[in-house]
Amino acid sequence: MFRSVKPLLLPESVAIVGASEAGGYGWPKSIYENLEHAGFPAKIYLINPRREELWGRKVYPDFGALPEPVDLALAIVPAEIIADVLADGARHGLKTALVYASRFGEGDDADGKRRSAALKAVCDEHGLTVCGPNCMGAVSLPKNLLFYPSPRVRGLPRGPAGVVFQSGGTFMFWLAQAGKRGLGFTYAVSSGNELNLDLADYINFMVEDDDTKLIVSMIEGIRRPEAFMAAAEKALAAQKPILMVKIGSSERGRSAMLSHTGALAGDDDVFNAVCEKYGIIRCGSLDDLLETALAFQAGRVPTGSRVAMVGYSGGGKGLFLDHAADEGVEIAAFSPATADAIRPFIDEGVPSENPLDCGAGIAPRQKDFSTVCQLALADDGVDIAAVQGQLPQIPSDPDDPTVFSDMVAATGKPVIGFGRMSQNVSEEGCAFQTAAQIPFLQGLPETVRAIKGLVAYGVRLRSGVAPLPAPGGNESDLHGAAFDELLASRGLTPPKSAFAETPEAAAAAAADIGFPVALKIVSSRFTHKTEIGGVTLGLDDGESVADAGLAMAKRLFAVDAAAPIEGYLVQEMVAGVEFIIGVREDAQFGPFMVAGLGGILVEAMKDVSIRMLPLTPEAARGMLDELRGKAVLGAFRGSPPRDVDALIGAMCGLSAVFLDHRTWLSDLEVNPLIVLGEGAGVRAVDVRPVAKG
Amino acid sequence: MFRSVKPLLLPESVAIVGASEAGGYGWPKSIYENLEHAGFPAKIYLINPRREELWGRKVYPDFGALPEPVDLALAIVPAEIIADVLADGARHGLKTALVYASRFGEGDDADGKRRSAALKAVCDEHGLTVCGPNCMGAVSLPKNLLFYPSPRVRGLPRGPAGVVFQSGGTFMFWLAQAGKRGLGFTYAVSSGNELNLDLADYINFMVEDDDTKLIVSMIEGIRRPEAFMAAAEKALAAQKPILMVKIGSSERGRSAMLSHTGALAGDDDVFNAVCEKYGIIRCGSLDDLLETALAFQAGRVPTGSRVAMVGYSGGGKGLFLDHAADEGVEIAAFSPATADAIRPFIDEGVPSENPLDCGAGIAPRQKDFSTVCQLALADDGVDIAAVQGQLPQIPSDPDDPTVFSDMVAATGKPVIGFGRMSQNVSEEGCAFQTAAQIPFLQGLPETVRAIKGLVAYGVRLRSGVAPLPAPGGNESDLHGAAFDELLASRGLTPPKSAFAETPEAAAAAAADIGFPVALKIVSSRFTHKTEIGGVTLGLDDGESVADAGLAMAKRLFAVDAAAPIEGYLVQEMVAGVEFIIGVREDAQFGPFMVAGLGGILVEAMKDVSIRMLPLTPEAARGMLDELRGKAVLGAFRGSPPRDVDALIGAMCGLSAVFLDHRTWLSDLEVNPLIVLGEGAGVRAVDVRPVAKG
Repeated sequence: MFRSVKPLLLPESVAIVGASEAGGYGWPKSIYENLEHAGFPAKIYLINPRREELWGRKVYPDFGALPEPVDLALAIVPAEIIADVLADGARHGLKTALVYASRFGEGDDADGKRRSAALKAVCDEHGLTVCGPNCMGAVSLPKNLLFYPSPRVRGLPRGPAGVVFQSGGTFMFWLAQAGKRGLGFTYAVSSGNELNLDLADYINFMVEDDDTKLIVSMIEGIRRPEAFMAAAEKALAAQKPILMVKIGSSERGRSAMLSHTGALAGDDDVFNAVCEKYGIIRCGSLDDLLETALAFQAGRVPTGSRVAMVGYSGGGKGLFLDHAADEGVEIAAFSPATADAIRPFIDEGVPSENPLDCGAGIAPRQKDFSTVCQLALADDGVDIAAVQGQLPQIPSDPDDPTVFSDMVAATGKPVIGFGRMSQNVSEEGCAFQTAAQIPFLQGLPETVRAIKGLVAYGVRLRSGVAPLPAPGGNESDLHGAAFDELLASRGLTPPKSAFAETPEAAAAAAADIGFPVALKIVSSRFTHKTEIGGVTLGLDDGESVADAGLAMAKRLFAVDAAAPIEGYLVQEMVAGVEFIIGVREDAQFGPFMVAGLGGILVEAMKDVSIRMLPLTPEAARGMLDELRGKAVLGAFRGSPPRDVDALIGAMCGLSAVFLDHRTWLSDLEVNPLIVLGEGAGVRAVDVRPVAKG
Repeated sequence: MFRSVKPLLLPESVAIVGASEAGGYGWPKSIYENLEHAGFPAKIYLINPRREELWGRKVYPDFGALPEPVDLALAIVPAEIIADVLADGARHGLKTALVYASRFGEGDDADGKRRSAALKAVCDEHGLTVCGPNCMGAVSLPKNLLFYPSPRVRGLPRGPAGVVFQSGGTFMFWLAQAGKRGLGFTYAVSSGNELNLDLADYINFMVEDDDTKLIVSMIEGIRRPEAFMAAAEKALAAQKPILMVKIGSSERGRSAMLSHTGALAGDDDVFNAVCEKYGIIRCGSLDDLLETALAFQAGRVPTGSRVAMVGYSGGGKGLFLDHAADEGVEIAAFSPATADAIRPFIDEGVPSENPLDCGAGIAPRQKDFSTVCQLALADDGVDIAAVQGQLPQIPSDPDDPTVFSDMVAATGKPVIGFGRMSQNVSEEGCAFQTAAQIPFLQGLPETVRAIKGLVAYGVRLRSGVAPLPAPGGNESDLHGAAFDELLASRGLTPPKSAFAETPEAAAAAAADIGFPVALKIVSSRFTHKTEIGGVTLGLDDGESVADAGLAMAKRLFAVDAAAPIEGYLVQEMVAGVEFIIGVREDAQFGPFMVAGLGGILVEAMKDVSIRMLPLTPEAARGMLDELRGKAVLGAFRGSPPRDVDALIGAMCGLSAVFLDHRTWLSDLEVNPLIVLGEGAGVRAVDVRPVAKG
């Protein structure tokens, strides 16, 4: 499932193909100078049929002329000849190639697509692996190999982050900025078109690499969803968080769908559910990606979701509360003991509560500030703390990093420093951050979102990923009475109903079921009952049922005097909160569930939540909690609370039924599912299976 | 309505009260040194009864000893004596005071509240104005007066922005960072508790000040809503945008409300509507406040909402589209001529469309990039453009500012430079920005939001603020038939209904109205008709109406054989989309409207939009456009499009009826308002006026 990235990132020997003084935009020379600057950490060969010597080295005409097979070729030659050149290499033992050139079918260009196919064929035929094309190279800091065409890449700090960006233009820009902020790296790959090696391969390599503790990525698409999910699951098991910016959040539900489930869940919504399943932290912007990476780099994951904040700035507390509310972050409550212990250290009159504004008086007493933060962190009701801190900017700024490192030493909980907005960070500031042993994030919204990411990762780390069970059901159970029984056994209770041969018997059956009921006439002559007035709703007593039955029969005979009447179907009328729950097989990522409030507004509101299967009761509860309209499940407008446990049971039941029978099903949807009052259960009024087409 | 801020920000003479070498946290000395550093731009006096000389100057014991009355006192004395000291000053001609001290009742402290009342009394008695207390001072760059206790305040750049922050802790922090990014200032005030001078006064001063073109603020609350709105309206008329961070977005609907309107609109929602009315641009974070201020500082406002983006970074285009979709920003479409003109300049294979990724090839050809941006800006379908640009960071970075200033010269439309994330900005970078004549914003989401702010401001600038008409209605029109007539005349059509004396006459009336109808029995003996089964819904033909009438009469006589029956009310049954529209008088900001989808889910979903009155048809349309569930107004699930024009008419009608009668009403709500199909109008089924209590 995974191809080796080792020859790319840890090569023993490297050939620069297309080596020249000024050719290829100067890239061969830039890369060579990077290698030279690092003291040639791998054996280097130059290849160019039109040169004999360059930079004091022998230049070889082709791979066949080299004294040994090389691990890696840096191919800086025109797109038109790439495939031929690499085929030559592969025939002479080349393991992998880094292809910078674009014009491999990124747009709709037919020539590009042809070149891409030819290169793919070379990979397939020879087992050659390729990074790119249309990429900006890679860097391997453990070996100090900088295959990026600019000296700007030198000096990136070592550290625990492995980086994969599909976007070449943003790759080094982000790395450089992240490095200046104190994020350290093992490997960084600009993966380009991912014609061959792809995100899954790189993640797999980084998970297996001891030095990489954290994987940071920016992507547009997933080439091999199964391999990607396998790599993500492996990363979670290895406790290596994956952070990701994925472009395309604005593209929703592009194709027409057979079910509501499909219409309600766009591709990007499903990808979010995939991230949720594997604990991948999706970031909304490049700045968020950096701030969140700094928070994760510190290496601590909270064991709960309760957040404390300690600061001393006017407005900071209020802004923190606003941003936390926006992001749905849980604010911790200090115990009375904590509040008492903190009170002597803070300004008179300010409340000793979380979030804590100590007042301006503490600013010059940094050790006291440290003590207050430590008291907050020691509270059993606090899982993670954000503490105000600015990196020194000018000589008069506080510059004692032990203020912060003392907090880290005193607790095992994560501690995040925050500034209220973006500022310049100097080398001295960065060194202070290292000595302080906590990350200093910039911007309150970014800090809150980074904390939210840490909390979400902790949740998934503790729960793990539930495995997808193998299908175990029978196709025959999807039809007729067997299907009804199967659904009922899984908590998808149908409305009570009974068949009666006469209107009088229907009235008696209705009394057993309980009023109000609906009555339907059953005649093999008429399948569309409403056309002949063969359905009556809301019958409140036995007399009405019997009368309605007679009236229906009269109407039916008026249309066709010879029509047979087999009998009458009496059905419970259920009144409650309408839900829709549906499961669907996503072509890329597999089965997922959509749940939301049903009724006329469901499509207009798109108030739904989505999870990948299998669904656990905990996950189902989480889905309900995400709904904007969740208030209708509680005591609402005079109605008693709904039977949420039964709803959760029905959701998990639908998940189980679908998974057992997914060999045959593409969709399975209940709409409406009526949620009755507490203890009264749910009624699956209409269940629609869609067979695979 | 407005108090003069001139003696505070443009004083001729200043007294430092509490002047001492080391007292008051060293603040008197710091402030004195700032004045000295600026060459004493105002006459300076020192006051301290326990000193005779300081810093080579005579120290006066009190205001009475001064050789002349002074304009401004910088009061750096303990909170306990402030009121007495300033009363002495006021008796000797002092015009205004800047009070730094806190402990004036910020919390629940009784002593503080007493001190605050005493100081207020001094202001009231003597006409003294006060800035603060609990503030960090003010700066007046036109006079180079820096009443802030730190040398850090020196060197703030001159420019068009006036600043008012209630938060003292964030005040200089934000100013310093904004200054480093190239925002320039006229005046900046830390307004503290606003015991006397308040936001409205400062805004008024800055609107009247010729040099201030832009007002930037961070606040927690509005002291005098009417004065604030008057100042905001004056600012809009003067084309001086107000940007604002307001804390408290997470506090919603704190008090119990009589109407849905109140429950659906929290205080913060109403404040957002106030901002919308006056074109105030509300920013979500301190970073957004800065980026948006830089965008506004450039001084151009778009005349439409269509946004172009030109860049050359992988991923940038996709991210821009995602952020634009998140923020609801309109993406321009290039004309074919523009697309053709651009094509030769950009990389082969990349689409010549907006947003435009030129491809990496253009990066070294900055003049071509400039040309492409100019072509995009020249398109009639483009109102504003964001162009990729990074401030020079290292010597090899492009450093030709004419790339950008040529764009500015070639168009009158706003041009915004953007980088993909936050980076350090050097003095050289800032100088480049000045030479380039465009702002360089940091971060794509921030850039998109700044553009959204410019567009929104442009809309309000063009429309202006509709004046609130004086009430012109009669109280008597709010009752009985007159009220029904009034509502009907304003587009709030009631369901068709007729009164009939007998069941037979009711059947005939129903035929006139059209089926289905509801029938209600009218008896002066019974007001709660449902208790005696006096209401029947959904009657489909004349026979059913007559039967239902008889049955009702029978039920009524069963309860009270002597009860009078005056007749029967026949009412149209209306089926359509349920809306709720309600108007309410906010205690602070006046009348506003809430509109949203009605029915059982309205409260759970809170899918409503809010505008201040008077409501124009354009504003009503904007409200509908904001609803998540707006799809139900179009052709939806087999229903034809709704009569949106009639809905807008009803909304504007409700606004007019309320405004005419607001002397007596606190709320006026229609729930439900049924919106029928196109051409069929609306039906105001239930209209509930709430009288002022």
